[in-house]
Amino acid sequence: MALIVHKYGGTSMGSPERIRNVAKRVAKWARAGHQMIVVPSAMSGETNRLLGLAKELSPEMVTPSMLRELDMIASTGEQVSVGLLSLALQAEGMEAVSYAGWQVPIRTDSSFTKARIESIDDSRVRADLAAGKVVVITGFQGVDADGNISTLGRGGSDTSAVAVAAALKAEECLIYTDVDGVYTTDPRIVAEARRLHTISFEEMLEMASLGSKVLQIRSVEFAGKYRVPLRVLSSFTPWDIDIDEEAESGTLITFEEDEKMEQAVVSGIAFNRDEAKISLLGVPDKPGIAFHILGPVAEANIDVDVIIQNVSHDGRTDFSFTVHRNDYQRTMDLLKSAVLPTTGGAELTGDPKICKVSIVGIGMRSHVGVASKMFRALAEEGINIQMISTSEIKTSVVIDEKYMELAVRTLHKAFDLEQTGS
Amino acid sequence: MALIVHKYGGTSMGSPERIRNVAKRVAKWARAGHQMIVVPSAMSGETNRLLGLAKELSPEMVTPSMLRELDMIASTGEQVSVGLLSLALQAEGMEAVSYAGWQVPIRTDSSFTKARIESIDDSRVRADLAAGKVVVITGFQGVDADGNISTLGRGGSDTSAVAVAAALKAEECLIYTDVDGVYTTDPRIVAEARRLHTISFEEMLEMASLGSKVLQIRSVEFAGKYRVPLRVLSSFTPWDIDIDEEAESGTLITFEEDEKMEQAVVSGIAFNRDEAKISLLGVPDKPGIAFHILGPVAEANIDVDVIIQNVSHDGRTDFSFTVHRNDYQRTMDLLKSAVLPTTGGAELTGDPKICKVSIVGIGMRSHVGVASKMFRALAEEGINIQMISTSEIKTSVVIDEKYMELAVRTLHKAFDLEQTGS
Repeated sequence: MALIVHKYGGTSMGSPERIRNVAKRVAKWARAGHQMIVVPSAMSGETNRLLGLAKELSPEMVTPSMLRELDMIASTGEQVSVGLLSLALQAEGMEAVSYAGWQVPIRTDSSFTKARIESIDDSRVRADLAAGKVVVITGFQGVDADGNISTLGRGGSDTSAVAVAAALKAEECLIYTDVDGVYTTDPRIVAEARRLHTISFEEMLEMASLGSKVLQIRSVEFAGKYRVPLRVLSSFTPWDIDIDEEAESGTLITFEEDEKMEQAVVSGIAFNRDEAKISLLGVPDKPGIAFHILGPVAEANIDVDVIIQNVSHDGRTDFSFTVHRNDYQRTMDLLKSAVLPTTGGAELTGDPKICKVSIVGIGMRSHVGVASKMFRALAEEGINIQMISTSEIKTSVVIDEKYMELAVRTLHKAFDLEQTGS
Repeated sequence: MALIVHKYGGTSMGSPERIRNVAKRVAKWARAGHQMIVVPSAMSGETNRLLGLAKELSPEMVTPSMLRELDMIASTGEQVSVGLLSLALQAEGMEAVSYAGWQVPIRTDSSFTKARIESIDDSRVRADLAAGKVVVITGFQGVDADGNISTLGRGGSDTSAVAVAAALKAEECLIYTDVDGVYTTDPRIVAEARRLHTISFEEMLEMASLGSKVLQIRSVEFAGKYRVPLRVLSSFTPWDIDIDEEAESGTLITFEEDEKMEQAVVSGIAFNRDEAKISLLGVPDKPGIAFHILGPVAEANIDVDVIIQNVSHDGRTDFSFTVHRNDYQRTMDLLKSAVLPTTGGAELTGDPKICKVSIVGIGMRSHVGVASKMFRALAEEGINIQMISTSEIKTSVVIDEKYMELAVRTLHKAFDLEQTGS
């Protein structure tokens, strides 16, 4: 008997029929002797419907008072879900009880629409579990110190599930989703892409932030911080699939480095095709120049991804960074007007048609030559590398977007990802 | 400057455009110097949508656990409303804040789906009012001693508004609705029906329970108990109608008896056409017989309206009562099987096609002959009276349903209701 947390997304909760199937699946786990906590999202479409209503009444959401009301409204989607799922569980003959975030309570700060969880009181939930009840808790929301409802932002239900699992010291947190796990790369690009049985938190963080949109990145950080074993698995299997088979399916995100000898050096290939590259060539290499360039960009709320500054020659250096393609023109205009006049004759260039391809693997830490193997594989295909950025467990290259698929396939093959397990 | 509570029904809150109009109306009152609390219902159709979802997952709502979940689900309709209205008020330039029942808190018992308000903490709301904010509070709901969300049952938003007005000692509670006040009788039956400027609580209670479905009866009881002046008025007037005109419109339900000499003896004619009559003739007149007959009926959850037992002859009496027409056959069957065999040869008769017509008026207390005037007017039209029941401020007769419109028109005219004011 173990304490298990299940998280179901909006698609799984999309209709009474689907909610009934979630209830049957949870009941199966409970009947197998597990203590069960379930964290469902709002029914698919519901959060957008609610936000649409709010937007009609207040097109600009600028003040904290407005954002507070937005959370008041948006949080109801999950409240309906937990009530419905609890009813469905009771109809299945289970004892079940639902809680909104404030009832647990899940305490957050007061950053409405993007609150952070501060603490979770486990006493009420523990008492229910001890009494044999399935506990259904709203995702996405909590309550601040003044008793105001807060939400965690889009995808926050993943974070809620992991936070609850951490607070209750659950054995595993299962995230049911519309993919059946984490892949070595996108199967739409590489047919041989293979599902990973396990992946480390560090790798998952790099994979997620690089574009494998399986899990909300904050939930992975949270799971890593509190060492919650996290499993991503498919919600599309029949609810009555054998429980042992289900418990081993999907991808387990672990906080322990795998001790196996056959540990793969590279676990996956991530990519991001919506990037644009901007360079300032020949800027004076003096203290504060990076802030001088990126300060105005940050102030304009433009997210910057890769940032590279190389060593200087003759007191001048080249400074490059990437932004989302949608922000390309705005960033170029901004640099032209706000930065260029004061950078002493630097030259501004850019390219909105680039992409980023990365190899990710915790094994890279202890293996030299991984990056050079990457560069050689790309060179053999005649793919020119425009920028390089590395971290301990990741190497990213910026290339012309027309080579993206070729690069991903080449690297997937070069690192034997279609064959090795991890 | 006064503290005023506004209550808006689901129709008034039915769309973003309508919510904007509510906000403009409330803003007008606030700008006139009033402290404003607003209690809106869920958007029209929303509560039914939510209950429909719940019913799909749990067709039978029998246990307290199920009813608790139902309240969890149903309460979200009002939570969305308060958030949207608060946003709309802010868009109008007002400072506004919304609260769910549990945030005030509005404390209730734990009778889920039909909870009763026990207390309201006014400190948070008072602080907001003092800070110049419009406070928007969910109708229909509260929180029990264990922190569970409870709802007050259908129409409970009226009761919430009155309870909040009582707790905050508001000067007046304005119930905006789709009728423009309380009438001497239904204008669809009597074209000359006239809107009453004021009506006493006692009269309103009798009018409401007799079928003038303007206000939830519990809210009127509540207003009477805590002496909250209650005004029913139209939500269909333009929001920018002159505030003094608006403040005098509709019908004021007062707890003070009008001192005017021209006090009308009868204020209105109420009626109910969905009744059925059942009689047990010749039952033994012994202690416990009324319970012996009605006990099984009550146990079967059949509501009984009028009950009449006349004096006995030769140790036997006739016992009659009315039920809703939909319950007629079930009640007859029940009496046949459960009661008749043990009532020593009593005879069971019934008529599902009767109606009840009542005259209501606080002036009846001090005026003799009012009932006889009613009976004479009906006799002159050849309408046979089948049953009579009276209270201090009401006289009801049961007649063949085919005479209902004739009886209502006759009585409206007989008591000069088309002319006198009250």
